[in-house]
Amino acid sequence: MSTKPSRTLDPVPNPHPDREYVVEIKCPEFTALCPVTGQPDFATITFKYVPGPSIVELKSLKLYIWSFRDEGHFHEDVTNTMLKDFVKMIQPRKLEVIGEFGVRGGIYTTVKADYEEGK
Amino acid sequence: MSTKPSRTLDPVPNPHPDREYVVEIKCPEFTALCPVTGQPDFATITFKYVPGPSIVELKSLKLYIWSFRDEGHFHEDVTNTMLKDFVKMIQPRKLEVIGEFGVRGGIYTTVKADYEEGK
Amino acid sequence: MSTKPSRTLDPVPNPHPDREYVVEIKCPEFTALCPVTGQPDFATITFKYVPGPSIVELKSLKLYIWSFRDEGHFHEDVTNTMLKDFVKMIQPRKLEVIGEFGVRGGIYTTVKADYEEGK
Amino acid sequence: MSTKPSRTLDPVPNPHPDREYVVEIKCPEFTALCPVTGQPDFATITFKYVPGPSIVELKSLKLYIWSFRDEGHFHEDVTNTMLKDFVKMIQPRKLEVIGEFGVRGGIYTTVKADYEEGK
Amino acid sequence: MSTKPSRTLDPVPNPHPDREYVVEIKCPEFTALCPVTGQPDFATITFKYVPGPSIVELKSLKLYIWSFRDEGHFHEDVTNTMLKDFVKMIQPRKLEVIGEFGVRGGIYTTVKADYEEGK
Amino acid sequence: MSTKPSRTLDPVPNPHPDREYVVEIKCPEFTALCPVTGQPDFATITFKYVPGPSIVELKSLKLYIWSFRDEGHFHEDVTNTMLKDFVKMIQPRKLEVIGEFGVRGGIYTTVKADYEEGK
Amino acid sequence: MSTKPSRTLDPVPNPHPDREYVVEIKCPEFTALCPVTGQPDFATITFKYVPGPSIVELKSLKLYIWSFRDEGHFHEDVTNTMLKDFVKMIQPRKLEVIGEFGVRGGIYTTVKADYEEGK
Amino acid sequence: MSTKPSRTLDPVPNPHPDREYVVEIKCPEFTALCPVTGQPDFATITFKYVPGPSIVELKSLKLYIWSFRDEGHFHEDVTNTMLKDFVKMIQPRKLEVIGEFGVRGGIYTTVKADYEEGK
Amino acid sequence: MSTKPSRTLDPVPNPHPDREYVVEIKCPEFTALCPVTGQPDFATITFKYVPGPSIVELKSLKLYIWSFRDEGHFHEDVTNTMLKDFVKMIQPRKLEVIGEFGVRGGIYTTVKADYEEGK
Amino acid sequence: MSTKPSRTLDPVPNPHPDREYVVEIKCPEFTALCPVTGQPDFATITFKYVPGPSIVELKSLKLYIWSFRDEGHFHEDVTNTMLKDFVKMIQPRKLEVIGEFGVRGGIYTTVKADYEEGK
Repeated sequence: MSTKPSRTLDPVPNPHPDREYVVEIKCPEFTALCPVTGQPDFATITFKYVPGPSIVELKSLKLYIWSFRDEGHFHEDVTNTMLKDFVKMIQPRKLEVIGEFGVRGGIYTTVKADYEEGK
Repeated sequence: MSTKPSRTLDPVPNPHPDREYVVEIKCPEFTALCPVTGQPDFATITFKYVPGPSIVELKSLKLYIWSFRDEGHFHEDVTNTMLKDFVKMIQPRKLEVIGEFGVRGGIYTTVKADYEEGK
Repeated sequence: MSTKPSRTLDPVPNPHPDREYVVEIKCPEFTALCPVTGQPDFATITFKYVPGPSIVELKSLKLYIWSFRDEGHFHEDVTNTMLKDFVKMIQPRKLEVIGEFGVRGGIYTTVKADYEEGK
Repeated sequence: MSTKPSRTLDPVPNPHPDREYVVEIKCPEFTALCPVTGQPDFATITFKYVPGPSIVELKSLKLYIWSFRDEGHFHEDVTNTMLKDFVKMIQPRKLEVIGEFGVRGGIYTTVKADYEEGK
Repeated sequence: MSTKPSRTLDPVPNPHPDREYVVEIKCPEFTALCPVTGQPDFATITFKYVPGPSIVELKSLKLYIWSFRDEGHFHEDVTNTMLKDFVKMIQPRKLEVIGEFGVRGGIYTTVKADYEEGK
Repeated sequence: MSTKPSRTLDPVPNPHPDREYVVEIKCPEFTALCPVTGQPDFATITFKYVPGPSIVELKSLKLYIWSFRDEGHFHEDVTNTMLKDFVKMIQPRKLEVIGEFGVRGGIYTTVKADYEEGK
Repeated sequence: MSTKPSRTLDPVPNPHPDREYVVEIKCPEFTALCPVTGQPDFATITFKYVPGPSIVELKSLKLYIWSFRDEGHFHEDVTNTMLKDFVKMIQPRKLEVIGEFGVRGGIYTTVKADYEEGK
Repeated sequence: MSTKPSRTLDPVPNPHPDREYVVEIKCPEFTALCPVTGQPDFATITFKYVPGPSIVELKSLKLYIWSFRDEGHFHEDVTNTMLKDFVKMIQPRKLEVIGEFGVRGGIYTTVKADYEEGK
Repeated sequence: MSTKPSRTLDPVPNPHPDREYVVEIKCPEFTALCPVTGQPDFATITFKYVPGPSIVELKSLKLYIWSFRDEGHFHEDVTNTMLKDFVKMIQPRKLEVIGEFGVRGGIYTTVKADYEEGK
Repeated sequence: MSTKPSRTLDPVPNPHPDREYVVEIKCPEFTALCPVTGQPDFATITFKYVPGPSIVELKSLKLYIWSFRDEGHFHEDVTNTMLKDFVKMIQPRKLEVIGEFGVRGGIYTTVKADYEEGK
């Protein structure tokens, strides 16, 4: 029943490219499938970035988050994939992505990845 | 019934221009419209500044906050626009503006921008 | 840019009319205008109800909440108006509406109204 | 600079006289003078009532609270005086007034008075 | 009934001028009038200082706080005026004054000013 | 330097003898001496009463609390003595006195006594 | 160095035998030995009673609590023994004894026993 | 009845070996036996690491945690053994292991061990 | 009944003069008289020190705290006097004294003084 | 029934002497006697150490804690004695011992002592 939404993050021209400022976006409604068991995983994904030429359009981010719903991903993989997609499509000066995953088999997992332009 | 309030911040002469002190103003009742969907957005806007020649008159700030009520703005844009308006009209030595926006599509956004005279 | 949304609450057939259960809906993003000063008021509106033949469709509730945005209402009036609209359009067995309004002139106001079928 | 505000509570016709509902109003910015020492007293005054033919207009309540500012009153007296004024001017079905007064001489005082129509 | 109390802070000889120590005084019962509307404002004022030749006598501080009761002052002004009065009358080595003001028009304001001898 | 304050509670005519209302007074600064060791005891004493013909004047209550400072009393005795003095001098319709005493020898003691007119 | 303290609770004539009031005594420093392993046990013992002809003298209670220090007792036994000793020596109208014991082998134990005169 | 699960941690190729990022895994369901008394011990074990060539597969971690169930281990030993097994099998760049053990004989124990590649 | 306790702090030979360690002592039951009004003041006094040749004997400290009971002292004075007495009689390597005083006239006061040997 | 337990801390060979890691042990059930009055004292003792050649066997620690039960000790002495015993018998690289003692005469005492190998 779920139609696959797009895997793109739409850039919107940064309305204030002359300024260095910080945007923090928290998405508590991420879900994907476990690549091993095929069972649902849930996570809160947080993006914290300093915009470069663009900012991310929130509706496209919502669809992007949604696009993982029927795919299998390791926690570490999906967190870094999001980091790389965001860097490629939005070109931030700095970015941190944090994935906090729901308990599985009595185990809690959190993954943190970051990026800085020119490093 | 809503009459459009003015977009100006009234400066009041800084009663103590000889001193460097800090004023923090928190406005939990900001609302504007989403530029994409036209639906209401809500936010808490915080101004933290070191006054220069002027301080901001609070009633004009209340009207200024109100003046965005019927306009469409991106979160990043409105936060920086407020920073620039405040800098232009009140000429602070330092200023930080923080916009904490209400959840949209399961997504929480915070924008932080700051200014320092002569930087 | 703000187009007036409709003042209707769309009923959806109660999928379990044979059961008495409770639905609680919290709307922290209500805003209207003060009927005396024309200035914005803010509130959190909570609906707590036992469905009868119908449940309320959430998008219509969002638009309903939004529809007060440009109108002037007394706190007591808007809370009871919402109660009566909800009773008329959704026909709950029981309903409580609570409006918690933002501080004005150093005064905090909360209005609670309830309804029970056949009383 | 302080001009004496009026001692009246303006009734507004109860927009829903057919319903029994509750209005709770909290006023943390009450101040008067001690009738013995003439020094300032501070309190939080809470009004909780079921409206009859009228509701209280909030701006008049703000001025009413303010009107005690330069007068001397015993805690017990001011709390009951407010109860009686409210009953006389607003004619609620039920009313509770609570005065929580600032510490004096290491002593904390709270006064609670209530009224029910026809009792 | 209110007799205007004096605007002076009485110095008491510092009983231990040979030592550098810290005194913190918190006054949650400050009230003055708004210079624009004439309506009451409320605040908590905190003084934190290192005594020089004198310490402040607390009863005179209570009367000093009280003395603003019937005057109009901007938040920024009153906070700095208190700083300057305290410096002039008590001659502390260091002083910080913080004014946390009650919400007005949905806006919360805090003002912080400090002084250090010889700076 | 300590002059023995009086052991009387001054009644003030109940300004609203026609009403049944509640006054709660909390005194965290009670101290007396241990009748066995002569060492200081500390307690928080709370009076909760429904006034009859009189209310208690707070300054006299402060002095009354103070009057035990140099006397030896058992916890149970002082709590009931206060109850009886209050009943005799203020003639409340109802009264509850609670004494919460500071830890002694690793032991915490609380005493509760109450009175109701005509019982 | 430890001298065995006495196992008696000294009664003091109830200074107010005409009144029914409540005394609550909390003793967080109870320790005894496990009758099985001989190892230390720890507990908080609470006595809540309505005095009859006597009240308990606190120093004797402290020594009483202490007197169990070198004896072996089951949790259930010591709690009821204290109830019976207190009833016999102090003759309360009502008494409740609660023993909250320290965790042992990952197990937490609480024992409650009560008495009422003539029941 | 418990069949011994394997003592291995399965490495999965690090999907982003080019990046330094952090993975934190919390396991509140560890149990082993006390090597002295043979009685059950319980603990929460936390692994915090920066992946090298591999990440740990969570199901194998779950079985690894389980594999200690019927073995006797000192708290300090099991914590460091897990550190060393993890380093050997997963080759992290950095790793911290924390074991928080349940109370035993009234004693609470926590063990922290860490590793950094090339140190 | 109150006999004036001594104003001395008894030194006990530091059982471990070879070690630098910290002793923190909190006294919530300090009371003295106001030197201006003669009325009781209350405070919590905290001593934090590194022992030199001696440690303070706690019973003498209790009596020392008690010895101020019937004397008039300014908050700043008593705090520093305690610091100096402690330094003179116990000769600590380091000492901090903090006095947190009960609210008076709506004003809260805290005084902090410290000492370091050879400074 | 109480047999005097031994005053030794049994070392167990550090299973991982090649590693520097931290062990924290909290003992809330310490009791000894007051050397002045002979009455019981209670405390929570915490040991935090980096093992050298040995770790402490927990049962021996439990007995060690227990061994003070019938002895008189000053708070400062017992805390440092435990530090020295632990250093002598377990030879840690680093050690901190904290004793938090139960209130006596309205006074709370905490003692902190630490050791570092080669300092």
